[in-house]
Amino acid sequence: MSGFAEPVSRRGLLAGSAVAASAVALASCAKGDESGQASADASADASRAAQAGDAGSTGPENREETMGGDIVAFDGKHQAGIQTPVQAHVELVGFNLKKDTTARGAAALMRLWTEDARRLCTGENPLGSLEPELSTTPANLTVTCGWGEGFFDTVDVAKPSWLRDIQAFDHDDLRPEWGQTDIVLQICSDDPFTAAFVLRHMTRAGKDYADVAWIQQGFSHAYGSAPKGVTPRNLFGQKDGTVNPRSEEDFNEQVWIEDGPFAGGSAMVVRRIHMNLDTWEQLDRAARENSTGRTLDTGAPIGAKDEFDPVDLDARNEFGLKAIDENSHVARAHPPAEHPEQKLLRRPYNYNLPPTPETTQRGELSNAGLIFICYQKDPTTQFEPIQARLDEADRLNEWITHIGSAVYYMPAGTEGETYWGESLIRS
Amino acid sequence: MSGFAEPVSRRGLLAGSAVAASAVALASCAKGDESGQASADASADASRAAQAGDAGSTGPENREETMGGDIVAFDGKHQAGIQTPVQAHVELVGFNLKKDTTARGAAALMRLWTEDARRLCTGENPLGSLEPELSTTPANLTVTCGWGEGFFDTVDVAKPSWLRDIQAFDHDDLRPEWGQTDIVLQICSDDPFTAAFVLRHMTRAGKDYADVAWIQQGFSHAYGSAPKGVTPRNLFGQKDGTVNPRSEEDFNEQVWIEDGPFAGGSAMVVRRIHMNLDTWEQLDRAARENSTGRTLDTGAPIGAKDEFDPVDLDARNEFGLKAIDENSHVARAHPPAEHPEQKLLRRPYNYNLPPTPETTQRGELSNAGLIFICYQKDPTTQFEPIQARLDEADRLNEWITHIGSAVYYMPAGTEGETYWGESLIRS
Repeated sequence: MSGFAEPVSRRGLLAGSAVAASAVALASCAKGDESGQASADASADASRAAQAGDAGSTGPENREETMGGDIVAFDGKHQAGIQTPVQAHVELVGFNLKKDTTARGAAALMRLWTEDARRLCTGENPLGSLEPELSTTPANLTVTCGWGEGFFDTVDVAKPSWLRDIQAFDHDDLRPEWGQTDIVLQICSDDPFTAAFVLRHMTRAGKDYADVAWIQQGFSHAYGSAPKGVTPRNLFGQKDGTVNPRSEEDFNEQVWIEDGPFAGGSAMVVRRIHMNLDTWEQLDRAARENSTGRTLDTGAPIGAKDEFDPVDLDARNEFGLKAIDENSHVARAHPPAEHPEQKLLRRPYNYNLPPTPETTQRGELSNAGLIFICYQKDPTTQFEPIQARLDEADRLNEWITHIGSAVYYMPAGTEGETYWGESLIRS
Repeated sequence: MSGFAEPVSRRGLLAGSAVAASAVALASCAKGDESGQASADASADASRAAQAGDAGSTGPENREETMGGDIVAFDGKHQAGIQTPVQAHVELVGFNLKKDTTARGAAALMRLWTEDARRLCTGENPLGSLEPELSTTPANLTVTCGWGEGFFDTVDVAKPSWLRDIQAFDHDDLRPEWGQTDIVLQICSDDPFTAAFVLRHMTRAGKDYADVAWIQQGFSHAYGSAPKGVTPRNLFGQKDGTVNPRSEEDFNEQVWIEDGPFAGGSAMVVRRIHMNLDTWEQLDRAARENSTGRTLDTGAPIGAKDEFDPVDLDARNEFGLKAIDENSHVARAHPPAEHPEQKLLRRPYNYNLPPTPETTQRGELSNAGLIFICYQKDPTTQFEPIQARLDEADRLNEWITHIGSAVYYMPAGTEGETYWGESLIRS
């Protein structure tokens, strides 16, 4: 067997003890160098020079013209992965900081993760990675980071007032294994291989500072399986996301925090929702549509024609009865006239996993559901009142159960060499 | 709540107690009607008429020109899903027949599963399914069925002589939860949503006759993420499948059984292989390449230039030493001159799952590996001798462990209205 390369400790690297090439790259980073592109190039060269092997044919310049090479800009006013159209795959990872991680360590983790994510999302090989071939197909990769209360405590920064556990609801059956964590990484790509590799890379890159608490793996439709812009379906067959914000104005109104230290950021609420396919599938289509308030084929509100027709809760059918059941999902979720702010961005993914002893014992054939990820300015005025109405009387409650809950502040976007949340940590 | 539709029992349906439309459709099936297309059309119409809702816009005729509409022919001399290029996703499902399932029941299961699989693979709604919208994007869907020893016993048909547990190897650490089952369904699609839906559908459709023993969920690269024909990589970064059969002649030589009652079929061996990414990634690139015998970037044999250059085990490097280590994976897997038949079709998928208490206890960050699916004429002269050489001295054994094993006879292809293995069951 030829030589072993001792894995490079990222802690050691950041302390300045690593190879010159890497130190150069990181120095430009630590200085907050303003000469964005030049320093990025230098660091890319340094990284290539640091590779043990020759990976000549794998750089972005050699990528074929396929979806695999599609890149979502990493830097910008807001983090990518929120307004970005839903990719096919998510690896949603909750991390907890190790007990001995200091404020300095937590900042170092943000710096190294941001640097690696920026490279990965650009189809470049992260510093110190010996797998350059695996970084060449970002396939619309986004890596989006969020902070839980525990992270704010560790870095000793004041948290947003809304950053606390989501209120308890009657129908919740929350499991501690899907609960709140200090950090979340939302890794999305249209290539499942890339999503898996990036999950692996980020976990390994952060291992000196943070442990994985849970991983929620989900899917939507494959890239290219339907025309762009088609609303994806969930495993109940419903189109999911019809009333999502679409314009910049919508996003500014519903999603992006506008003022104060958290401006440019957003709030993620993630709910793991078990869906009982067995009992749902015992319903005929009329009952399914009555429960959701929309037709299953087109997704139109019942009594309307098109998916995007407005929801008219007062519309009457031929019998003079309300066309949309007042306890249907649509009716309960609809913002009341006096609270037009009760809207949010849904960015959900499906899961359909092998049965567990628990699901089998309950007599269920499947272990399926939704990783309900949503974004908004403030969960206390958006997710919580909406969910309170749903919890009270949504007909769908008969077939769904919320089994996990967590909430995170998603820092604003990065630019050039800045890292996630840097302005908060350094202020 | 409007009415419930009592779920239609497939057993009842097959016994002739179902709605007229369905009975018509099935009758043409049971008669082995030769007027293929006409009867398929009639049964499709019957199926549509039997839908509770109007799913007008979802038939194949309305599909957009996207990858989602791509169809792999279901019927043919051989089952699809073997020679078919690897799709992005697999749901490999091991089923065991229920204790009270008779020979007649097992045959009924094959008939109904074949009928449903044929429709699903063609983008049509299976008989009795109330989710027509979920069947519209086959995205190269294939559903491939295999029989273990238990199935042959139940239908009381003589099994192939090679159909028995794979011989034990020293490095095996086989877990009963990934062991032999009576039946396997290999569900592959380029759309993860479709794969999940078909898994759900087939499980539910067969629930009167068979229980799920395990589900192995895996991924390759996404459709369109790389140019067609590029050899996919596994999580060690290796190109996996370079020496696969490609021509019809290759397939006839290595994969398809030629004579006797099993002609047209093949043998699947599935091995679940845990890969220790943590220790693998401690190797530098030279050590990784030395272990596999190929370069990681191009996949060329060490000392050669191109991925598809022949493996020359006698080639010498500049120091006069063998270019390819004699215990590298390539050297050990290579068929010896006296046994040119020791080749097979690899059709592997990756898995990268959340850590388990067991993997965490071992100090591993990841829970990753390979669902190694291979096809051949006879495992006793193909998989077994190859694996015996690998088990003996393959350098990769330091980082991989076989934790599951099963072997199946894959019946020949179907035509028109025939079902999987019908000629064996009815003979």
